[in-house]
Amino acid sequence: MNKEMKVILAEELKSYTRFYRGNLVNCLTGAKPAFLAGSKSEAGNPNLALFTNVFHLGADPALIGYVQRPVGQSGDTFRNMEANKYFTLNVVTAEIAAAAHQTSARYASEVSEFQACHLTEEYVDGFFAPAVKESPLQIGLSLFQVVPMEINDTKLVIAKVEWIRLQKELILEDGNLDFSSIQAMNVLGLENYYQATFDSHRPYAKV
Amino acid sequence: MNKEMKVILAEELKSYTRFYRGNLVNCLTGAKPAFLAGSKSEAGNPNLALFTNVFHLGADPALIGYVQRPVGQSGDTFRNMEANKYFTLNVVTAEIAAAAHQTSARYASEVSEFQACHLTEEYVDGFFAPAVKESPLQIGLSLFQVVPMEINDTKLVIAKVEWIRLQKELILEDGNLDFSSIQAMNVLGLENYYQATFDSHRPYAKV
Repeated sequence: MNKEMKVILAEELKSYTRFYRGNLVNCLTGAKPAFLAGSKSEAGNPNLALFTNVFHLGADPALIGYVQRPVGQSGDTFRNMEANKYFTLNVVTAEIAAAAHQTSARYASEVSEFQACHLTEEYVDGFFAPAVKESPLQIGLSLFQVVPMEINDTKLVIAKVEWIRLQKELILEDGNLDFSSIQAMNVLGLENYYQATFDSHRPYAKV
Repeated sequence: MNKEMKVILAEELKSYTRFYRGNLVNCLTGAKPAFLAGSKSEAGNPNLALFTNVFHLGADPALIGYVQRPVGQSGDTFRNMEANKYFTLNVVTAEIAAAAHQTSARYASEVSEFQACHLTEEYVDGFFAPAVKESPLQIGLSLFQVVPMEINDTKLVIAKVEWIRLQKELILEDGNLDFSSIQAMNVLGLENYYQATFDSHRPYAKV
């Protein structure tokens, strides 16, 4: 690797415009898996939102976290989930990438992004929050804990996995999932989509 | 999509073996960007570890978080960082994927994974923690906050971006990064590597 390198110190980062800095810093954490978060208000309005800041917190109990930006004009998912505890995460594939991205537009709270973006609500086993029928991997979650971050008004939302609904053929013998056929989408920053294409299996490393 | 679907409820998940459940739940959060975390002990021993559970927490100040598993036999990065505050995150590319995966073997604390796995230490601007010279995107971080999760003994580690060192050509005009040339690696579960290949640019969505 003999490409020319550039160093940006924190101070220089501070001097950038909000837009430029936001793009750059959002990209530092790499091409993150894209999910559609499904929820429903008490009044019965379904909602979809694009989430790319999701993390694994533990397998037993199965816990998933996500970073909630300051809740203002947007934030329907969080408000719904605070009210009734439930939401879903649905893996975004190439097939539904355009519709998924479109859900990030600022639709009014009473507009269903399912309808506006032509995706299909699906209620698994009577669960309150809608899943996305077109997604090959859907996860039902219930709110467990909200950790407020004082420094910047974000929140870490921790949720319990209540159910998983997925294409049978995705599950390998050892419990791992095979994404090689579903063209799962990852997002770098906010606007650039990458496809997760299978590269290699690397077994447990030994000294 | 007419593939056969399967529903797994939380109770069924509990009945699986630890190994099978661990694989499955680790995969739910998708193919996550792989980073090498570089750190150094007070005694001067450098350390590398594979991190795939990194999240964006904010752009101003620039904050990055990661999920720290219970610190036991492994956990050198966390111990080093607690002692001296500093670590680096370095994007893993196809070129260094084998070496990066090998750092996840249980080397003794006094062994340098740089040496054992044939990667090169690089000290940016006198920073205490080593970066990985072979990585096209290196981030210097300082510990800001540790949030203990009572439910499962994990910790959310929040760190401030002190500097970014990257290939000049990766930065686009608007501050976004272009990963289309670097073959960045993502990991699904713990053993399956995916490459992030560019798919599409989708500008800010409007109603």
